[in-house]
Amino acid sequence: MAREMVRQGGRSARIQSEVHRTVRDMLKTMDRGAITVPMIAEKSGVTPSTIYRRWGDLSELLADVAVARMRPVADPEDTGAMGSDLETFILQYAEEMSSKVGRSMLADVLGSIEGAAAGRCCQFTYDHLETLRERALTRGEKAFDVSEAIDAVIAPIIYHILFRDRELTIDYCRSLVSRFLEKCAGA
Amino acid sequence: MAREMVRQGGRSARIQSEVHRTVRDMLKTMDRGAITVPMIAEKSGVTPSTIYRRWGDLSELLADVAVARMRPVADPEDTGAMGSDLETFILQYAEEMSSKVGRSMLADVLGSIEGAAAGRCCQFTYDHLETLRERALTRGEKAFDVSEAIDAVIAPIIYHILFRDRELTIDYCRSLVSRFLEKCAGA
Repeated sequence: MAREMVRQGGRSARIQSEVHRTVRDMLKTMDRGAITVPMIAEKSGVTPSTIYRRWGDLSELLADVAVARMRPVADPEDTGAMGSDLETFILQYAEEMSSKVGRSMLADVLGSIEGAAAGRCCQFTYDHLETLRERALTRGEKAFDVSEAIDAVIAPIIYHILFRDRELTIDYCRSLVSRFLEKCAGA
Repeated sequence: MAREMVRQGGRSARIQSEVHRTVRDMLKTMDRGAITVPMIAEKSGVTPSTIYRRWGDLSELLADVAVARMRPVADPEDTGAMGSDLETFILQYAEEMSSKVGRSMLADVLGSIEGAAAGRCCQFTYDHLETLRERALTRGEKAFDVSEAIDAVIAPIIYHILFRDRELTIDYCRSLVSRFLEKCAGA
């Protein structure tokens, strides 16, 4: 029984990795609107029903692939002080998320009705900010509050990426960070 | 020639209104993921190619229908003072956008790759805030800045609706408004 479960786990993991790889490859060369579950199934060597059973529908699968690509590979850079740590992280975050690939991953993550992908995606951001906060505390700095950083800095960046109502210039992102840090210092 | 153009305009407007009505009806009874362009075309009495020519693809059509539904029918309520005007507007905005219908419209608007629908959608919010600002100026109050209201109040609300990382309680929304108004008063 245990062996059977392991074997199932192995097969299940192989299907996941193969389907993810197929979707990533297709996204490189095809228009997202042209991708269908039967096409993904054929290229991955599984049946469409395997995909529907596992992911529900195409938007859930695209969201799952996008979150897997967004998973961070390293901690945010340690620049020696909280202010520069946060600014460095935010400038990189804004650049990545507003890039063509970033926008497309964000659209896929938010396109899932289930919403689990969105939660996993924003957890990466919370984790990074928490790392910066703990680093600041270790240094003896007055650390910012993670939820407040989300509201004051991350939320406006995401809003402007999604609604395209203002350009995300470096100066604008810097001003979000500096106003937030001033407020933290004064609070 | 002029008559021909008018006739075209009339036909074009009728197609738009019929297709929009069909999509709204289908969204009431069907799962969004199950709706296809050929189904919409059949129920609207047009050909699929008419829909593709006009809207590009399904996600652009869904975004167009969502924006049309979001178009405000009235100015925000005049409560006699800027602070209560803003709070009233924000509480209603948060309630509408976080409802099931609001979330679904938001997803449709943001699902468009073109992004024109997102711009039109957030323009409604800018217009409402501008109305409140002008009303405050007319009353001789120290008025808030619209872009700052977007960053400090609207962006966090939309972020939490999309990423579901915190509940949008009335107290939380009120605190966003009151902290923003304090900052405006102090600035």
